[in-house]
Amino acid sequence: MVNLKNYVSEINDFPKHGIVFKDINPIYRDPLIWKQAMRAIEDLVIKTSPDLIAGIESRGFIIASALAYKNEIGFIPIRKSGKLPGKVIGINYHLEYGSDRLEVEPESIKKNSRVIIIDDLLATGGTASTAGKLITEAEGQLIGYGFLIELSNLNGRKKLNPEVLIKSSIIY
Amino acid sequence: MVNLKNYVSEINDFPKHGIVFKDINPIYRDPLIWKQAMRAIEDLVIKTSPDLIAGIESRGFIIASALAYKNEIGFIPIRKSGKLPGKVIGINYHLEYGSDRLEVEPESIKKNSRVIIIDDLLATGGTASTAGKLITEAEGQLIGYGFLIELSNLNGRKKLNPEVLIKSSIIY
Repeated sequence: MVNLKNYVSEINDFPKHGIVFKDINPIYRDPLIWKQAMRAIEDLVIKTSPDLIAGIESRGFIIASALAYKNEIGFIPIRKSGKLPGKVIGINYHLEYGSDRLEVEPESIKKNSRVIIIDDLLATGGTASTAGKLITEAEGQLIGYGFLIELSNLNGRKKLNPEVLIKSSIIY
Repeated sequence: MVNLKNYVSEINDFPKHGIVFKDINPIYRDPLIWKQAMRAIEDLVIKTSPDLIAGIESRGFIIASALAYKNEIGFIPIRKSGKLPGKVIGINYHLEYGSDRLEVEPESIKKNSRVIIIDDLLATGGTASTAGKLITEAEGQLIGYGFLIELSNLNGRKKLNPEVLIKSSIIY
């Protein structure tokens, strides 16, 4: 077992001044490290037996689709505004600076399907909690969240539904 | 064996007027269909034994990371301008309307690593050929391309390096 934090690069002032960005791309380059980093999220799959794994655009796609394909579970994308073709439902939400919108194809979720949501990073929880509301609005059953990194000092967990299982691999 | 084209939705006038967009998201929802759709690309991995699988942002991430994680091969993202933190190299290229830029983290590719490039769609080949040049510029060895869908009437293959293996799952 290596210390996964050694595979997270810190980049100052990205994407804007004052933010120290955690780059997890080095994890994906090394299949053994990647496997180790996925353990908490693989465990989430075992404990929740989801029908669908939803990934949040675009870094969440990397983890969610890997997990879904290997475990033979369906994958659905949750995307930013205007990226999904056809019929979508969406929710606007506020960010620290400005606002954003997440969308999903409602036909991708059968009524009461058990869904887990995957993203690379849990920070303030605004994106993840909006994604959860979107699954509920599409009549899916939200049963869990999985993240590769959690910035625990930002208290993102408190914004998420306390009744679902939340797993993070690397906690700061 | 089902006809995979039954799982591709056609959306008129997306993302702009006159374009019929092929939505392959229905494939990912069904793990057995997804597996069948990946056969050609899984075969590319067997035939080329890559060290790294590069996915093009953002729909290419879905396929590339799934393939990489399951086969225990490293994954690297090729992203649009300004999305990768830290040191990057990039190439600008022309699209039918306007221009775009792809970037990669040069440290993600060890010299002479064997790399395959994965994207969801091969259309005119502009994006894929630029991604190939980027791998070469980063001193990787480009050995293959894999796509889920190829629009053969747009002749994208002719823009790609003829010395590398090119595989597509669903050909129109």
